[in-house]
Amino acid sequence: MTTWSSYLEKEQDRFLDELVDFLRIPSISALPHHTADVERAAQWVAERLGQAGAQHVQVFPTGGHPVVYGDWLHAGPDAPTALIYGHFDVQPVDPLELWSAPPFEPTVRDGRIYARGASDDKGNMFAPILALEALLATTGRLPINVKFLFEGQEEIGSPQLPDFVAQHRELLAADVAFSADGGQFSETEPLLLLGLRGLCGLEITVTGPSRDLHSGIYGGTVRNPIHALAQLIASFHTPEGRVAVEGFYDSVVELTPEEREALAQVPFDEKAFYREIGVAEPFGEPGYTVLERRWIRPTLDANGIWGGFTQDGIKTVLPSQAHAKITCRLVPDQDPETILERLSEHIQRHLPAGVRVRVDALGGRARPYRIPLDHPGNRAAGAVLAELYGREPYPVRSGGTIPVTGILLDQVGLYTVSFGFALPDENIHSPDEFFRLASFRRGQEAYARLFQALPHFL
Amino acid sequence: MTTWSSYLEKEQDRFLDELVDFLRIPSISALPHHTADVERAAQWVAERLGQAGAQHVQVFPTGGHPVVYGDWLHAGPDAPTALIYGHFDVQPVDPLELWSAPPFEPTVRDGRIYARGASDDKGNMFAPILALEALLATTGRLPINVKFLFEGQEEIGSPQLPDFVAQHRELLAADVAFSADGGQFSETEPLLLLGLRGLCGLEITVTGPSRDLHSGIYGGTVRNPIHALAQLIASFHTPEGRVAVEGFYDSVVELTPEEREALAQVPFDEKAFYREIGVAEPFGEPGYTVLERRWIRPTLDANGIWGGFTQDGIKTVLPSQAHAKITCRLVPDQDPETILERLSEHIQRHLPAGVRVRVDALGGRARPYRIPLDHPGNRAAGAVLAELYGREPYPVRSGGTIPVTGILLDQVGLYTVSFGFALPDENIHSPDEFFRLASFRRGQEAYARLFQALPHFL
Repeated sequence: MTTWSSYLEKEQDRFLDELVDFLRIPSISALPHHTADVERAAQWVAERLGQAGAQHVQVFPTGGHPVVYGDWLHAGPDAPTALIYGHFDVQPVDPLELWSAPPFEPTVRDGRIYARGASDDKGNMFAPILALEALLATTGRLPINVKFLFEGQEEIGSPQLPDFVAQHRELLAADVAFSADGGQFSETEPLLLLGLRGLCGLEITVTGPSRDLHSGIYGGTVRNPIHALAQLIASFHTPEGRVAVEGFYDSVVELTPEEREALAQVPFDEKAFYREIGVAEPFGEPGYTVLERRWIRPTLDANGIWGGFTQDGIKTVLPSQAHAKITCRLVPDQDPETILERLSEHIQRHLPAGVRVRVDALGGRARPYRIPLDHPGNRAAGAVLAELYGREPYPVRSGGTIPVTGILLDQVGLYTVSFGFALPDENIHSPDEFFRLASFRRGQEAYARLFQALPHFL
Repeated sequence: MTTWSSYLEKEQDRFLDELVDFLRIPSISALPHHTADVERAAQWVAERLGQAGAQHVQVFPTGGHPVVYGDWLHAGPDAPTALIYGHFDVQPVDPLELWSAPPFEPTVRDGRIYARGASDDKGNMFAPILALEALLATTGRLPINVKFLFEGQEEIGSPQLPDFVAQHRELLAADVAFSADGGQFSETEPLLLLGLRGLCGLEITVTGPSRDLHSGIYGGTVRNPIHALAQLIASFHTPEGRVAVEGFYDSVVELTPEEREALAQVPFDEKAFYREIGVAEPFGEPGYTVLERRWIRPTLDANGIWGGFTQDGIKTVLPSQAHAKITCRLVPDQDPETILERLSEHIQRHLPAGVRVRVDALGGRARPYRIPLDHPGNRAAGAVLAELYGREPYPVRSGGTIPVTGILLDQVGLYTVSFGFALPDENIHSPDEFFRLASFRRGQEAYARLFQALPHFL
């Protein structure tokens, strides 16, 4: 009789061919002209989930991009239920000229598969589907009930997911969730993710004169909206790098000395970190280490700014408007709505005279997230990782944001354990994204072990 | 026998048709893909100048856009020589959506012709050509020698004109220059222009990390170049509106109390000025009136700013670079090169740590310009204007810049008298630019009278 492990081994070539098919679909959620591609990726996932043995497979419309659901619920009413999460949408590919090969024509080189979405998140989210297939094909059953929730708009902040989850509480009910949208510390070191930062953002539009003006005829007599916007942006931080928005830190939970001590144990090569991004010297909030600034401290960043004449050459215009997009990464217990209010108040209070301002909240806000180290899901994941890697995982946090974690906790009281196999160098959101074939294989093995181990922890 | 005046009257419909042809050419000097259109406009001007009776008509290449020259030199060696200046290039048209009709499909409504370049400067520069034609067609001669110098890159700061003038000193030798790139105070009030501001500019590029970064993974640990650029721009002014660049005002000549008193006599409706541009309250350098801020005080304005993600929606990028274009309007005796040095020093001194900066001077610098009220050219122009309008002209200045004025003074010791018929409400550099047909007609009449009056003043 074939074991699930030898089944995985035997089918690896087919699985890789299938992953290539999946990666060929340019499911870029941010770009409206790829809407049909995101839909096509949803259909691909639904079909593949059914082939693996999942039941009740369904593609749900959401008002935005679709959600795919499927389950296998034959472990009995006393067995625990796990909800597996992943996403089949991908980031845009610009700047396209920096890719070594076309982003949607996957290429395998040196044990890696290169394509947009290879690591984030198609290669990762495919693994638990294959684990399900291997277990059902060889043992005919799982010791747990499992539900799959795959979405098509993680990369744009999961705007319709809160409503979808609220409307399908019963369908999604489970004991714990595992997210295949995540990674490990290195090829030889596993991690347990204890926190993610939240997100909120707004767009600022500063208007001075009602039309673009000749800077000779009018220059010197009116407030230039670019200058006013620059003053606003400069007012967001102290010269030392702390956010200067009134009330911004009010709800931030300070870590205990013990917690900070535990963070300090995580290996971190500061010099290599800055070398890799071409920055000569660290900069950030005084009083915190670089890792703390990334993981446990909130931020405010301008993501974009524009106004006036931006082409080659010279045009002596005094522009009517200037614009900026601002987002904040939030930490427990900052609330996205409250922070947006504090930001708006700050902007009104610091607006220079002579211009008007409009503030529009951006979509895609997310609560900061944390999960206890000793949560049963973490204990189960930790045990599987320790077996696979031969060492205990590091307890870490991430500065990034995965909206589903806060949504499941808010809407259905469900903690999400990060259980993915991406690695930090895989160029996610950048040109030449890749995924290691060894990680693809390890993800399948890890999910098969996790499904079997879970009854011992829940 | 037809008089030149009745000739102008009779040919007005044809002249308007020709102006429409001229305005159809999208001769935008700032945009490289319109280079051939600027060349086409030069050919149009050269041909029309020849038809009017000018000789030695020639289109000169300059390394940038071309210059058109032509002359009529049969008044004899003792007669004075006037050099007539204008430009056939136009400003870009964006924002295109704010135009009521396409900018290069001229439309006549309510005694106005609407098109990009109608007022600045095609309608104005065409007038002296028509005056030449009318005089030669009816009297067969002029009492003065006249030379025409039309350029194709005034709107980008005449970058090649200094070299062209230096290389053609003899060709351009004259007793006085008149610029058809100018205007009058109102439909019923003429002016004499005694000063123009100069110009210099630079582009700032602030670089932080060597590539765009994920704002979650890196946010809080590196200086955001948009923030650094905002701090730089905020550092250029005091909160009250005075330029804070060290040494910026060093060479500024303060006006005497008598000169300021004379300026204060020029009618100026401050409320209407601000109402027309939709600005609620004046802003500018403390201690000076609004007119003084426009005419005799230097300025520093950001004309454009850009960096990071500027499309619809949200992209949580921490950008590698941010950019701004900055120009200064200069007053006597500020020197463009010196001011660029002061700006660069200021930028280096105020650059926040953790980013690098590059400063590139923009083309198109110009010296500030002034001409005595009692210059013979001003006396001639003033006499013609007083006849035409039935009142003496106001002695004024302008906040704008016309590089040729400083270039002719520097290179060939020639003063330029402003003698154009634009009016302040004609939306130059903005959507729906127009020119009054009455001003087009008045310009022709004015130049014909000027050509005849000049021998009495020189």
